[in-house]
Amino acid sequence: MTSDTSVPESGPPANGLPRRAGIADVAARAGVSVGTASKALNGRGNLREETRARVRAAAEELEFAPSTVARSLLTGRTFTVGIITTDSYGRFSIPIMRGAEDALGLGEMLAFLCDSRDDPIREQHHIKRLLERRVDGIIVAGRRTDARQPVGRNLPVPVVYALAPSADESDISVTSDEPGAARLAIDHLVRTGRRRIAHITGPHSHASSRVRADSTVEALRAHGLELVGDPWFGSWSEAWGRFAVAQLLRSDPDVDGIFCGADVIARGATDALRESGASLPMQVGVVGVDNWVISAEAARPPLTTVDLGLQELGRRAGELLIAAIDGSPAPGLHTVPGHLVVRES
Amino acid sequence: MTSDTSVPESGPPANGLPRRAGIADVAARAGVSVGTASKALNGRGNLREETRARVRAAAEELEFAPSTVARSLLTGRTFTVGIITTDSYGRFSIPIMRGAEDALGLGEMLAFLCDSRDDPIREQHHIKRLLERRVDGIIVAGRRTDARQPVGRNLPVPVVYALAPSADESDISVTSDEPGAARLAIDHLVRTGRRRIAHITGPHSHASSRVRADSTVEALRAHGLELVGDPWFGSWSEAWGRFAVAQLLRSDPDVDGIFCGADVIARGATDALRESGASLPMQVGVVGVDNWVISAEAARPPLTTVDLGLQELGRRAGELLIAAIDGSPAPGLHTVPGHLVVRES
Repeated sequence: MTSDTSVPESGPPANGLPRRAGIADVAARAGVSVGTASKALNGRGNLREETRARVRAAAEELEFAPSTVARSLLTGRTFTVGIITTDSYGRFSIPIMRGAEDALGLGEMLAFLCDSRDDPIREQHHIKRLLERRVDGIIVAGRRTDARQPVGRNLPVPVVYALAPSADESDISVTSDEPGAARLAIDHLVRTGRRRIAHITGPHSHASSRVRADSTVEALRAHGLELVGDPWFGSWSEAWGRFAVAQLLRSDPDVDGIFCGADVIARGATDALRESGASLPMQVGVVGVDNWVISAEAARPPLTTVDLGLQELGRRAGELLIAAIDGSPAPGLHTVPGHLVVRES
Repeated sequence: MTSDTSVPESGPPANGLPRRAGIADVAARAGVSVGTASKALNGRGNLREETRARVRAAAEELEFAPSTVARSLLTGRTFTVGIITTDSYGRFSIPIMRGAEDALGLGEMLAFLCDSRDDPIREQHHIKRLLERRVDGIIVAGRRTDARQPVGRNLPVPVVYALAPSADESDISVTSDEPGAARLAIDHLVRTGRRRIAHITGPHSHASSRVRADSTVEALRAHGLELVGDPWFGSWSEAWGRFAVAQLLRSDPDVDGIFCGADVIARGATDALRESGASLPMQVGVVGVDNWVISAEAARPPLTTVDLGLQELGRRAGELLIAAIDGSPAPGLHTVPGHLVVRES
């Protein structure tokens, strides 16, 4: 840490690099005071147009970039937000972050990224640091759709929860359309002629497993069909997909469609079906969830899957945060629809 | 955008949320001037210890968090850095970012994340925005080890290149130890009794494919062995791993070890070997690169692989950047060693 006390507008370089032109340099070149140069560049005050033009020309010649630090002192905003993620693998947070960046970039905001690593103490530490930085708002991105405790009460800036909604309904949350995901999968399987459809999914303790399973049963009923057997709750893994299919083929050998709650499960399921001698997709159709491209495309056959629209979800979170910062918060739970990506399974 | 002109220390809330206590509130509660309150909290100036204590107590009661904006005006630093990533899937950038965050967090710095999406125009836009924000430095994280053009000349802040080194050797770059990765894999295969070892890897146009292939040949020679056939250059995909193994078993049916340049290739290779009837790892040993856990653990058998230490690489990039900001740049190409993760393949 340096104890240099220069101000950023005109500080000497601490690291031997060429120093940036500051407002004082611009003023000197234009032959005006620092205050006049500042007014000219901010478009404020009563200045002659000739003076304004001279200052602007000097700023351009010196490649002067207006300091956001100084700008924030004038507007009361820092044009920064914090994004806190909990997703160690990045599969869920990367598309959310990218979408949020799109929305925030349009609002000329930059995002500080903090990884809480599913540790509440780290999370609180990040909240504190972000508030010290005077961020204008915070996005908290989860990796599950289970409701979570709010990061705090009466925080001085708006917070938007992405994917994992806040348990407090007066907070602003945006999540994926889980019932809609099940409907997209079932409608596709029925449309392609499947009538004996089973469901293999993740742990019963995860909200998205339970909601998708219930919605699967409902979507089948809307077509006048019943689920084959009970939903198979297990884990988000290929091994579970393989194991469940082996059991399923024993209990219901005439199954002709399987909706899997995740691409990793669908991948294990397609491997087990293929290795059992079943012809895919002729004999059994399989649909996953996630559209995790690198894995879905490598499966044999490549997976038909429901894309939950996480990038769009991130964009929506960014838009909701900007609206809240601008004084128009939209509390409650917002959902973003998914869409089906048809491949060969 | 708001045109509110309040200063952040005492601005009225624009969004209906409880407003943060500012330095003026602390001063009022302690019964001192704003200047005195500021000196007391910054530990500067000649103040009576009693006054200092009273101001600190007031700050605590009001949960006053010192504004980084104000602090940066005093030190000439913003304690922020920018991280620019190019990695759309996040497999490489997530561990690098996490490591960098570790190093920067210790220096009380926060990172703005920008995704260039492999688009040079986006990258320049991000550089410009980051410089406008007066970041203290920038990390540019790539997803390949090929040297890349520097992001600019004579930038006013230090830049550290992570994974993809700068083509300018006077820049600060840190990358993975590619020859070392090949040695780790070959040493393991030889130690487990393999003598007829082949190499299947990514595109010849990628530096890491070429360097690992050359280093594989050298590492084998150090054991008095020759590579079986030529290196198989192809693509970073499971399909390539499957296809290459099918050809390899035709040309060299007595191969007993395969070093694959990536886990996705190794995964395709193990699938093809298993489906050809080979017993793994008894008949053929397979080693990958990446330790992309979610895929390596799902393979049958789970993959033995070289972990390139990307999180450590990110940490090193963060440390190199902090050193450069503090006036001690270490130009040149730094490498971070990998390590072998032994599973069942």
